[in-house]
Amino acid sequence: MNSETEQLPHGFPEHLIAGYRAFVSGRLRQEQARFRELAERGQSPRVLIIGCCDSRCSPETIFDVGPGELFVARNIANLVPPYGPDAYHHGTSAALEFAVMGLRVEHVVVMGHAQCGGVTAYVQNEIDPYSRPLSPGDFIGQWIALIGDAAKRLGPPTEPIADYVERLAKESVRQSLRNLRTFPWVKNLEERGKLKLHGCYFGVADGRLQTLDEETGAFSPVFAAF
Amino acid sequence: MNSETEQLPHGFPEHLIAGYRAFVSGRLRQEQARFRELAERGQSPRVLIIGCCDSRCSPETIFDVGPGELFVARNIANLVPPYGPDAYHHGTSAALEFAVMGLRVEHVVVMGHAQCGGVTAYVQNEIDPYSRPLSPGDFIGQWIALIGDAAKRLGPPTEPIADYVERLAKESVRQSLRNLRTFPWVKNLEERGKLKLHGCYFGVADGRLQTLDEETGAFSPVFAAF
Amino acid sequence: MNSETEQLPHGFPEHLIAGYRAFVSGRLRQEQARFRELAERGQSPRVLIIGCCDSRCSPETIFDVGPGELFVARNIANLVPPYGPDAYHHGTSAALEFAVMGLRVEHVVVMGHAQCGGVTAYVQNEIDPYSRPLSPGDFIGQWIALIGDAAKRLGPPTEPIADYVERLAKESVRQSLRNLRTFPWVKNLEERGKLKLHGCYFGVADGRLQTLDEETGAFSPVFAAF
Amino acid sequence: MNSETEQLPHGFPEHLIAGYRAFVSGRLRQEQARFRELAERGQSPRVLIIGCCDSRCSPETIFDVGPGELFVARNIANLVPPYGPDAYHHGTSAALEFAVMGLRVEHVVVMGHAQCGGVTAYVQNEIDPYSRPLSPGDFIGQWIALIGDAAKRLGPPTEPIADYVERLAKESVRQSLRNLRTFPWVKNLEERGKLKLHGCYFGVADGRLQTLDEETGAFSPVFAAF
Repeated sequence: MNSETEQLPHGFPEHLIAGYRAFVSGRLRQEQARFRELAERGQSPRVLIIGCCDSRCSPETIFDVGPGELFVARNIANLVPPYGPDAYHHGTSAALEFAVMGLRVEHVVVMGHAQCGGVTAYVQNEIDPYSRPLSPGDFIGQWIALIGDAAKRLGPPTEPIADYVERLAKESVRQSLRNLRTFPWVKNLEERGKLKLHGCYFGVADGRLQTLDEETGAFSPVFAAF
Repeated sequence: MNSETEQLPHGFPEHLIAGYRAFVSGRLRQEQARFRELAERGQSPRVLIIGCCDSRCSPETIFDVGPGELFVARNIANLVPPYGPDAYHHGTSAALEFAVMGLRVEHVVVMGHAQCGGVTAYVQNEIDPYSRPLSPGDFIGQWIALIGDAAKRLGPPTEPIADYVERLAKESVRQSLRNLRTFPWVKNLEERGKLKLHGCYFGVADGRLQTLDEETGAFSPVFAAF
Repeated sequence: MNSETEQLPHGFPEHLIAGYRAFVSGRLRQEQARFRELAERGQSPRVLIIGCCDSRCSPETIFDVGPGELFVARNIANLVPPYGPDAYHHGTSAALEFAVMGLRVEHVVVMGHAQCGGVTAYVQNEIDPYSRPLSPGDFIGQWIALIGDAAKRLGPPTEPIADYVERLAKESVRQSLRNLRTFPWVKNLEERGKLKLHGCYFGVADGRLQTLDEETGAFSPVFAAF
Repeated sequence: MNSETEQLPHGFPEHLIAGYRAFVSGRLRQEQARFRELAERGQSPRVLIIGCCDSRCSPETIFDVGPGELFVARNIANLVPPYGPDAYHHGTSAALEFAVMGLRVEHVVVMGHAQCGGVTAYVQNEIDPYSRPLSPGDFIGQWIALIGDAAKRLGPPTEPIADYVERLAKESVRQSLRNLRTFPWVKNLEERGKLKLHGCYFGVADGRLQTLDEETGAFSPVFAAF
């Protein structure tokens, strides 16, 4: 590549072009062989991460992974819908099916995070019955309705709201794990020891990662002395 | 953080823990102020990327961005369904609504890529009438049916299949841009100059990025002498 | 009636009960014979008024009419949809059919008014592409889309907005008259001299009524020296 | 105002002009300050009334209210359609959305009445298979089809028909209250105690108002010794 010959693509965000140039002269140079091999042999990631679209929560950044390691589905509020072959939430279920049944990943990680806009929107809608949708289709409202089961377990919002939002974001991770197990093949593979499910929670402000111990139901930091 | 006090979380994938440790001692250290500021002020990314779940196509890696820069929705084959307030594809539409109407991003980028498993699965289903779903729910099959409109424009699969898959992956990016414009608020904001739509295509093997010129319909490399 | 024996109905708004009591001891006492006659012979109003739901624009108050005089349809922004036997706006078309073809009224009056919330909402939606609907169904948005034809005639909003809103409210009255004439039987009866169509505009602040001269297109006050 | 300078507007119904003159010299004079304040501050009625277009049933007259007190939607037979974001009855749903979600009224009153032409038309259509629509579009027929759910509860028409019509008009008020509760935000606000729903029935002949006790399902007169 010769940056002298660069032709700036019509209207494409300049900072992305700049970032891509840095990728090409940096990481790509180091990992070129790995990319080529992944293209030829196909991907075989061992982990599916279901994360949030949030710009502060890139799984590849947080887990510092290289190409080919993480299969990543990202939706608003990192939600997994329950199994429903005729229902409305195919995108995430398709990613799950592709990863688990196609790529045969060994782990599914649901990663929640602090200050989640989707969870916050859900709570605001609960508190303010006059809250208005972002658009007439109210796609957000319909999507985050999936948080309802977790919210029922917590009970109605309590002050301080920021604490409730955090508790709900964590309960929603637990609920997504429950929902994962409503997929018959997920349940089956987990029972046979071929698939493991995990929950974790990323604290944006301090970068602290907590993982869920499903036996106790508690989230605790990966590094104790953080 | 003190790695001595580390408590390996029960069953959590070890290489992710290792990667997270690298993140904490590397990138987080550098970007701690930025993370804290993003937690306090909230995110305000200027770009939504709709990418594929593929483990070789991390948008943050390819565009070398830091926290807060990209709002990222990732689904199988980076598809955008057409507008349909009552339809089955809410996850991606919700991410679109959140990014465009909530965060008011200025750009939406649909990023396709080479060797896409979703596009390949669509083509194999077309070629082989005996092809089997990955699971009884056939979530993949229902999801990638969204590729049908693009496939109709190309006509039936032709040899060599690898070329057809690439052409279809690119046509599918064009179709997703068309579908984006079926959302009334996307169309409205684009007409007012407040939102720009872009397509690009990542060649996994050589790391080459191509961007779409919608006027000519052609994809061309960002760097000519790649 | 004996107010001593009054039984306050469970939860019914008290001020409405108080108002009804005033009606019973006042107006009903005077007009009891008229009400009874209207019940026995049926109503035969000569005028249909299509007005706004606005609480400041009661046609019976503004025209000081007694029982039986005005047949009144009230919807948001006093809109008449165009003729469309299969379309979405049956409520007002049904009232029109009932009044014109059933009761054979001689006049249809479309009454617009100042500070109309429906017209204002339409203009705000035009100005702000991020404006949010009142509810996911966005019934208002769909209904006031009927103002679009009038808005096209005026061109895009101009400052000061309050003036534009007034001009649009008046153009919308003209448009409703045009729409009335798309009903074949309205057009037919008007051509035969059996039905007259009128537009007027109520200025809430000063109580000034203006009527529309369809030949010149101008609204002018009923009383010049108001 | 100086009646000497009056210019009779071209063709506008004379008795309405006369009535308006009475309003100007009477009620407007008394309530001028209130009108001006309502124009400046905007309306904030606490009650939405859904009433019939019938010329004998003006809510402002029956409840003797001044400007700004009642938000009034009037359609044939005071019907509320069930919730249906894509359905055909937007006018009334828009008024409901505007009043409840926009103006945040505290009460919604559905007011039925005796000798209702819409209800009578529905019954006649049931009895006489040869009954003819008022016009080819049959807007009335389509609109009053909304009475069907109430009619199913009563069973087919029985003699004397006048009694059946009254029972159906009352059942239709109950049905409209049921339909109101199919709007998710109405249900939500009622459950939170922020909105109350009421039914009433105006006997045109004697001016007697009955209110509905939803617990018993009975309508009973506001004043016992009427």
